[in-house]
Amino acid sequence: MTQPLDPIACAQALIRCESVTPVDGGALDTLQEMLGRLGFSCTRLPFQEDGSERVDNLYAERRGPAPNVCFAGHTDVVPVGDPADWSVPPFAGEVVDGALIGRGAVDMKGAIAAWVAAVSRIPLEAGTLSLLITGDEEGPSVNGTRKVLDWLADQGITLGCCVVGEPTSGVRLGDTVKIGRRGSLNATVTVYGTQGHTAYPQHADNPVHRLAAALNDLAYEPFDQGTEHFEPTGLQVTSVDVGNPATNVIPAQATAKLNVRFNDLWDSAAIERWIQERLDRHCPRNELSMRVSGESFLCAPGPLSDALVGACTEVLGAPPELGTGGGTSDARFIKDACPVAELGLKNATAHQVDEHTRVDELYRLTDVYEAALRRLLDGI
Amino acid sequence: MTQPLDPIACAQALIRCESVTPVDGGALDTLQEMLGRLGFSCTRLPFQEDGSERVDNLYAERRGPAPNVCFAGHTDVVPVGDPADWSVPPFAGEVVDGALIGRGAVDMKGAIAAWVAAVSRIPLEAGTLSLLITGDEEGPSVNGTRKVLDWLADQGITLGCCVVGEPTSGVRLGDTVKIGRRGSLNATVTVYGTQGHTAYPQHADNPVHRLAAALNDLAYEPFDQGTEHFEPTGLQVTSVDVGNPATNVIPAQATAKLNVRFNDLWDSAAIERWIQERLDRHCPRNELSMRVSGESFLCAPGPLSDALVGACTEVLGAPPELGTGGGTSDARFIKDACPVAELGLKNATAHQVDEHTRVDELYRLTDVYEAALRRLLDGI
Ligand SMILES: [Zn+2]
Ligand SMILES: [Zn+2]
Repeated sequence: MTQPLDPIACAQALIRCESVTPVDGGALDTLQEMLGRLGFSCTRLPFQEDGSERVDNLYAERRGPAPNVCFAGHTDVVPVGDPADWSVPPFAGEVVDGALIGRGAVDMKGAIAAWVAAVSRIPLEAGTLSLLITGDEEGPSVNGTRKVLDWLADQGITLGCCVVGEPTSGVRLGDTVKIGRRGSLNATVTVYGTQGHTAYPQHADNPVHRLAAALNDLAYEPFDQGTEHFEPTGLQVTSVDVGNPATNVIPAQATAKLNVRFNDLWDSAAIERWIQERLDRHCPRNELSMRVSGESFLCAPGPLSDALVGACTEVLGAPPELGTGGGTSDARFIKDACPVAELGLKNATAHQVDEHTRVDELYRLTDVYEAALRRLLDGI
Repeated sequence: MTQPLDPIACAQALIRCESVTPVDGGALDTLQEMLGRLGFSCTRLPFQEDGSERVDNLYAERRGPAPNVCFAGHTDVVPVGDPADWSVPPFAGEVVDGALIGRGAVDMKGAIAAWVAAVSRIPLEAGTLSLLITGDEEGPSVNGTRKVLDWLADQGITLGCCVVGEPTSGVRLGDTVKIGRRGSLNATVTVYGTQGHTAYPQHADNPVHRLAAALNDLAYEPFDQGTEHFEPTGLQVTSVDVGNPATNVIPAQATAKLNVRFNDLWDSAAIERWIQERLDRHCPRNELSMRVSGESFLCAPGPLSDALVGACTEVLGAPPELGTGGGTSDARFIKDACPVAELGLKNATAHQVDEHTRVDELYRLTDVYEAALRRLLDGI
């Protein structure tokens, strides 16, 4: 057992590193120093794929009896916008009226600090603990978690389970544990027609009319009714652009952009067929291109989610829901290596001006993580 | 009876004046000189409304027994684009392989020349003839025909009937006499929603979805089945623009542009109500603004159209159809002063590069106009 660490001090030290993706700003060194004092051996894993920014990563491990209970997170943060819009400097890590304010306070330097502080309360002999920390979660996610997992596999290191510290809580700390994520993809649709004069529409073929009919179907036909752990699949048309300045000209083409969030009834190929079918109904000449941000996945409830639910209930007095909402996270990569679940601070101010967490909530999350660790090290 | 004029020479003289709206380029002087030799007394009527370009107009009259048979036309032409795209210089008035090529050859210096040549074959004592020629038909039409008609009313000059020389012929010279025009209006629709993240559509209200539903109704619900002399009313969506670059953001608003061509069952206020009703169905927060280019009108068939139909049948061997298609013309102003109908050259090359008329068709149109004049001066 080492000297317990204060999660507020740890979070402040991390926030003070200006680690806007892909810059590290000393964040991994700061974390490595804390972990070193707790008995972890640390490996830095810088990766750089052709044409991308070089990103640094950290794998820290404190070996004990198996299994390996891992925490995954990221020290990189999103940009702060205009610092003048903040009520305190965004990298100062100041506490004002019981709130720790700063970029990364909830997403997710606060959660890393809480985990590290929780670990500092766990005896060395309790089990194998590890941290997989990337500097490339808010960016393209090319040189981060995915590559570290490949490296772990190459080393023959297996993870027993993994907690991801993303801010999963909604209105109340610990109200949601995420056990999967919806898939997400973006599509661009171009519909071709025949240009002509609005006075002679019989000689033209208006692609805007065809696109409107297709978008009406795409926007209002339900994909599904949701599943046990997922909301219904949803499609949003984010833009339609024709850019025709001539009021008496029927344009030759029209373009729309779509974003789809899909549940475990679908994969991206099935979504593509769904979109294509509705386009083909109305638009004989169309082009559909897609970019998949992530497939949907579910880690079925089991010992890992049980431990997190039990810890929340014990410390906070109420059980969390098992959810799958929100955007993507690195859990989409980890789910192929071991059971994964996500639990962290309240997400309301993530990526916003004056991102902050209540100080008492950071202490409570530390307690929750400690309770979860004790259950996992006992039970798995 | 004066010396008959050659319509080709007259048309060439007019084409050689570079009269791109609002520039006159000597076109009215050239015409006035021809008409003076035919016994017309000419009044020049320059008008300039606040903030608009000054435009010159001509009212020419050769008084005889009533009624006053008027020809209305315009000497202004649309721009030529890049003269290098033309096979001959656009203001040279050259005849190549039996075709008179030049800007205005069909719209409508050719028709003016044909009318003047036809008049030169009509005895002075046959009746009262007049020409109302504007230099502001292809432009804003503010300082042209409308103001000349006001001036005529102020002078106590009444017109018995009026032939407008717009190029009404389609595949065959004299296949169409226009006895009315559809109305035309442009509308801009803005639909408001609530911006949000595509991962949380329940907190947003996507205006693109609402607009797609409204446009689907507007594009595909028929207004009417057409009337005796009119095609069905039609609506074209000419542009939709959102301009949202962020693939994960539901935008706050979406805009569409509409053009409506409407028949004699509708006026612009009724069209506005139709559009507004379909917007309100799907889009609780919308804004509709309209610009009316012209109301629909019909001059019911009568002695004027009978004379033009008879002249075409006599000279060309086949009767024309009575139509109302195409865009607007100054007939929309004249219809309030006297019966009006339109007959002119083939419109295929109007406003195009290498605008041209067959020389023999210009001679035939002169014959048609002469035959029409004889019928009108006899019969009205
Ligand atoms: Zn995050
Ligand atoms: Zn014209």
